[in-house]
Amino acid sequence: MSSLITLTTDFGRLDGYVAAMKGVILGINPQAAIVDVSHEVAPQDIAGAAFLLCTVAPYFPVGAIHVVVVDPGVGTERRAIAVSTPTALFVAPDNGVLSYVLRLPHWGAAVPGAPHPSAAVSAPVEEEAAPFPGGIKAVRLTNSAYWRHPVSATFHGRDIFAAIAAHLSRGVPIEEMGEPISSLVTFPIPKPERLPDGSLLGEVIYIDHFGNLITDIRESDLPRGELVIEVAGRQIRGLSVSYAQGDDFLALVGSSGRLEIARRNGSAAEMLGIGVGGRVKVRML
Amino acid sequence: MSSLITLTTDFGRLDGYVAAMKGVILGINPQAAIVDVSHEVAPQDIAGAAFLLCTVAPYFPVGAIHVVVVDPGVGTERRAIAVSTPTALFVAPDNGVLSYVLRLPHWGAAVPGAPHPSAAVSAPVEEEAAPFPGGIKAVRLTNSAYWRHPVSATFHGRDIFAAIAAHLSRGVPIEEMGEPISSLVTFPIPKPERLPDGSLLGEVIYIDHFGNLITDIRESDLPRGELVIEVAGRQIRGLSVSYAQGDDFLALVGSSGRLEIARRNGSAAEMLGIGVGGRVKVRML
Amino acid sequence: MSSLITLTTDFGRLDGYVAAMKGVILGINPQAAIVDVSHEVAPQDIAGAAFLLCTVAPYFPVGAIHVVVVDPGVGTERRAIAVSTPTALFVAPDNGVLSYVLRLPHWGAAVPGAPHPSAAVSAPVEEEAAPFPGGIKAVRLTNSAYWRHPVSATFHGRDIFAAIAAHLSRGVPIEEMGEPISSLVTFPIPKPERLPDGSLLGEVIYIDHFGNLITDIRESDLPRGELVIEVAGRQIRGLSVSYAQGDDFLALVGSSGRLEIARRNGSAAEMLGIGVGGRVKVRML
Repeated sequence: MSSLITLTTDFGRLDGYVAAMKGVILGINPQAAIVDVSHEVAPQDIAGAAFLLCTVAPYFPVGAIHVVVVDPGVGTERRAIAVSTPTALFVAPDNGVLSYVLRLPHWGAAVPGAPHPSAAVSAPVEEEAAPFPGGIKAVRLTNSAYWRHPVSATFHGRDIFAAIAAHLSRGVPIEEMGEPISSLVTFPIPKPERLPDGSLLGEVIYIDHFGNLITDIRESDLPRGELVIEVAGRQIRGLSVSYAQGDDFLALVGSSGRLEIARRNGSAAEMLGIGVGGRVKVRML
Repeated sequence: MSSLITLTTDFGRLDGYVAAMKGVILGINPQAAIVDVSHEVAPQDIAGAAFLLCTVAPYFPVGAIHVVVVDPGVGTERRAIAVSTPTALFVAPDNGVLSYVLRLPHWGAAVPGAPHPSAAVSAPVEEEAAPFPGGIKAVRLTNSAYWRHPVSATFHGRDIFAAIAAHLSRGVPIEEMGEPISSLVTFPIPKPERLPDGSLLGEVIYIDHFGNLITDIRESDLPRGELVIEVAGRQIRGLSVSYAQGDDFLALVGSSGRLEIARRNGSAAEMLGIGVGGRVKVRML
Repeated sequence: MSSLITLTTDFGRLDGYVAAMKGVILGINPQAAIVDVSHEVAPQDIAGAAFLLCTVAPYFPVGAIHVVVVDPGVGTERRAIAVSTPTALFVAPDNGVLSYVLRLPHWGAAVPGAPHPSAAVSAPVEEEAAPFPGGIKAVRLTNSAYWRHPVSATFHGRDIFAAIAAHLSRGVPIEEMGEPISSLVTFPIPKPERLPDGSLLGEVIYIDHFGNLITDIRESDLPRGELVIEVAGRQIRGLSVSYAQGDDFLALVGSSGRLEIARRNGSAAEMLGIGVGGRVKVRML
């Protein structure tokens, strides 16, 4: 149990939606500490929110409760869920937004240099199947005793997810929140393809505020030796250590432990004109 | 008394104005929990801030202190005020920014499905006159012992409103803050007009981050039966339950308990080209 | 010691960088209270962040810990530092971002009306030399026992600055964090020039969210008497007391204690077409 709750939404900052959620949480647990992850997720960008969450959750103390409300299906038959792992809890719609975090077997593996299953990739993407790996429990949120009433059909973030997170933060066990479930909606996480010549073909999975292109190629995927990175018709020789070193365009292992393409004092995304899904190839010199 | 303080301003997020207010609050009450409602109110948009506040305040625990600094008249003769109700306290300039929240007789009535006085509307708008309804007290902030000194003529948010809120959060009674007053500046709250044929003529009072058009028509105002909603030359048949259901354009009762016009996975405001004040008509099929 | 930590960065609000810093802080000190100053500093705008910090720090209680991560040199030889003064602590890269706050001999002097050294300016800018004024201590952050590991070469904000701030907030003395140093990188702080005819020639040092032009001319610099302010080919007669008084364009002493040029209900920056570095002259009528 922890009284630490994080919020990730696509609600923006103009309106009172986020504050209403915080009001509900603090009404149930006045001791809760609430941290905003981001409310600037692009509307309905489930994949973007899923990646964002996995760049943040590993840095929170054990037991933190992460609430994600990117929920285009609110009010439909999509399930609302809570998931516990050995290190964290998650409260979200069951729409794939936990795909990244639940693929991480141990949080520690999310940091650069740690071993990761994707190091062993050889060919096309493949989904991990249920049952869950050890220590993961999931419930469908069906016990309305822990919801705020009346429940708006359009704002489960306030009336269900925030209320559930607050009760969890007071120590109510996840099992109280609803019926156990044994599978979740996930989407295939992009993984680089290893080509016959030993090179890696990956893709851009996230573009940050600075215009850095974050790829699905993890540090442990990279061949050892002198590398050439090909992106948008350009070739970048070698990896830089930091954004301040290297040439105009540079490649480095960023703070999420993944290969990034960056531009010195500028936006690589803008200059290269590529977006999420753009291809990046890594080969030996 | 509560140590929970919310902030609603038009200060934006670029500068240090909001943080300076928080520094003043935490200097007076280190235990204060501060929640940002929004700092993206359009500069000097008193009506927008007033509505925003009423979508948020009902969801906070009893005793929360809501500070609103949308204050084009700072440094003039406009009054600075504190208001207590049975469920909350407000600290703000006396410029109408509390118009919505003080019309709500009980916070609980702000949620969908609860009865609301406007259900009985018949014709043109009318102001409730002083004296205040039961349990509401208001003072003009004249006791400078509770201000931060020296007081900037341009930033009462930091030197008066934040300091007052912090002292209130430590339990100083509102009566200590200044002279009691018996009327406040308010603006007429838009209410739908019921036409002779039984249809309702309302207007858009707020546009949110998603481009949803929130109207002054409350759930309890709506006739029972099959409805047609007319807006910007379009007709929408029936109410949807959620944003994910219904056609391209849809009408529903949103999380503030009011009729909204929305566009599925898009911005209704942009597509319909209407803004605050745009007319919306509801009639029986 | 204080458990109050503020954050000023150029990370924006889209990504998880700020939240990752907060997670690290709360993992080390669950009691820390964290306040965002701004995350919208223009990328790599060290001077802007330096000014912003000095408009905020004086309003926080004694002992607050201010973390600044505007750090274009991350991963290079630039030093990471912690600085303590009689009233506050700072954790930042050693790139000049503390130039403004460390020029203030006492925090109290930052408020309008208090005496300030720049009142005595006569001609060109001059740097204060080391050793530090009384009560200031600085260390280079070299003791990696207080960092988070592994340390990303691109995100010292998370792995070094946040971790150091959290340990400081638990009472670890600054001397533990690394080797004492006796000088810091600073940049010359703009000061107005006093011309032979007694008039003042200053410049715009910051433009806020409202488009107000904040100059380097402090209240104590201003001659007593009837003034004329010249900016962008316009003449403004006399000082206004507040934004709501005066003509279309107006000059006043703003909440930072400096001369500002503002436009009533609008953006002076936009209408006058001048930016940071633009000249402002003050002369006697």
